[in-house]
Amino acid sequence: MRIAIDAMGGDNAPKVIVQGAMQAIKEEKNLSITLIGDEVQIRKHLTHEERIVIVHTDEVITGEDDPTRAIRRKKNSSLVLMAQEVKQGRADACISAGNTGALVVAGLLIVGRMKGIERPALSPTLPTKNKTGFLLLDAGANVDANANNLVQYGVMGSIYAEKVKGISNPKIALLNVGTEDTKGNNVTKEAFQLLKEAPINFIGNIEARDLLAGVADVVVTDGFSGNITLKSIEGTAMYVLDLLKGVLTSSLKTKLAAGLIKKDLMSLKEQLDYPEYGGAALFGLKAPVIKSHGSSNERAVYHTIKQACNMIDNNVMNVINETIQSMNKKEK
Amino acid sequence: MRIAIDAMGGDNAPKVIVQGAMQAIKEEKNLSITLIGDEVQIRKHLTHEERIVIVHTDEVITGEDDPTRAIRRKKNSSLVLMAQEVKQGRADACISAGNTGALVVAGLLIVGRMKGIERPALSPTLPTKNKTGFLLLDAGANVDANANNLVQYGVMGSIYAEKVKGISNPKIALLNVGTEDTKGNNVTKEAFQLLKEAPINFIGNIEARDLLAGVADVVVTDGFSGNITLKSIEGTAMYVLDLLKGVLTSSLKTKLAAGLIKKDLMSLKEQLDYPEYGGAALFGLKAPVIKSHGSSNERAVYHTIKQACNMIDNNVMNVINETIQSMNKKEK
Repeated sequence: MRIAIDAMGGDNAPKVIVQGAMQAIKEEKNLSITLIGDEVQIRKHLTHEERIVIVHTDEVITGEDDPTRAIRRKKNSSLVLMAQEVKQGRADACISAGNTGALVVAGLLIVGRMKGIERPALSPTLPTKNKTGFLLLDAGANVDANANNLVQYGVMGSIYAEKVKGISNPKIALLNVGTEDTKGNNVTKEAFQLLKEAPINFIGNIEARDLLAGVADVVVTDGFSGNITLKSIEGTAMYVLDLLKGVLTSSLKTKLAAGLIKKDLMSLKEQLDYPEYGGAALFGLKAPVIKSHGSSNERAVYHTIKQACNMIDNNVMNVINETIQSMNKKEK
Repeated sequence: MRIAIDAMGGDNAPKVIVQGAMQAIKEEKNLSITLIGDEVQIRKHLTHEERIVIVHTDEVITGEDDPTRAIRRKKNSSLVLMAQEVKQGRADACISAGNTGALVVAGLLIVGRMKGIERPALSPTLPTKNKTGFLLLDAGANVDANANNLVQYGVMGSIYAEKVKGISNPKIALLNVGTEDTKGNNVTKEAFQLLKEAPINFIGNIEARDLLAGVADVVVTDGFSGNITLKSIEGTAMYVLDLLKGVLTSSLKTKLAAGLIKKDLMSLKEQLDYPEYGGAALFGLKAPVIKSHGSSNERAVYHTIKQACNMIDNNVMNVINETIQSMNKKEK
């Protein structure tokens, strides 16, 4: 299999991108990688040449670029060329740690939507107490969603959780303002009924308060609420760690304590950063398109590549396609 | 002024409710309090009789009760009788730490909506780095909201922040999936334009990631997103503290460190619990109706009573009423 990677995306590109790729290629013997970006810069971090192709380009989409305009105008950007690799059949999947909005647009306009899927969904994995993590979708690919979109998110998430994360009979929940069946706005009320009929293990509504407790393996919501949930969780975790840092540097005594638990605190921070969970896959496209976190380190990039390999190996796209087709057939 | 308090609402009722009332009544010489609930239980914690009236009832609305049904059927519950005190003019404001949904329904059906307000909003204050806190509304009084509702939330929040919290020219922001002016779903895009025209200091969109950084004094959103935001923040703070607790009890060394910073960690927890911020006021009703947190301690109840006093003293209801009337007139 071959994976195309935007070598210029993210805060620490191309260094950590190339390093992560090097780690993955050494391990996965049937993997080839196409790195797209500034060849001179990429070569600086290359430790392995075999099964590596470099596609050189100077153009880059930045975090400040307007997604749709950037995809239309920056035809030679590393992100656009990466998506073209998939479209033209030279790669089976693609990965970028760059502009999330631009990646979504490139996925839609270049890689293309899977037949029968109304809207793709961005699907990060967030941490849980039991370290399995849960999949949140949609985290912001589409700000408006109807009940049927939410059902498709549930089906795609369920297949991913089973095939890639190896969870048998994964628990799918609907993000809502209360756990009772009748709670919610018009969209979630309708989605609740449809999710009960879908070929998934739907466990009902979940409140945002219980997300990190690991009650569900997959949590379904519209992209507006999902984006706000994701960013609330990230912002709050950062806030509490910041308060803690304040506490630990406030006096000689607390600094002493900080020294004693330094290593343990690092592991706590890692549990919140969850690099081993990989990136946020865009479900509902013709091929895996994965967003690696902008602040990804080498390990996070490596895990994102492994995630793409897993999606290809386990035929996730085909299973999603067949399931959605058969559901759509039934409806008609 | 007189405040009616549901003495039976919340996890630690009636003990902390009565204790908080005792503290407030000693301090505020022109305050009278009506405590509604089981007289025998209330009297156990009474340390002051002056300016205190007890209205006895055995009936209680629990957290499991369906809000609308409970308000309709449990006519003698402490929560319903509390709202009746306001409706019948015997109290200027009311407070409960009980069933939030039931309090919202009681506010709407018994206390009544302010003329010109389409939907009331539940408005908790959440913590920020600078300790001013920010007001989030609507946190779940109404799960569906249109653009005009959001503008009314902004106006009510602005008046509260100025009159009660003493912030001059408070900064009002719209919760959204990005900070750019054009971001969002249909409702937020329309609301953005209307908020620019409203008589408030509208600073634009805010992302959930930046909420606790204190970028805005008032954050406006629909009740579905607001509820999810509030619970995401609460759940994440709890999760991180739980991880920290795990770290601090994992070995002899970390336990030693925990002993050194015990007091400092308590202050960190307090910064997240923010009892001094008071409760969540229901804006848009004829009188202040305030939800105190279910897990409130004596201090939180005391601060909620002070908050109600402040709202009455500063004529918040009248100012909201006049502002909304003049806005509605302009539109016509």
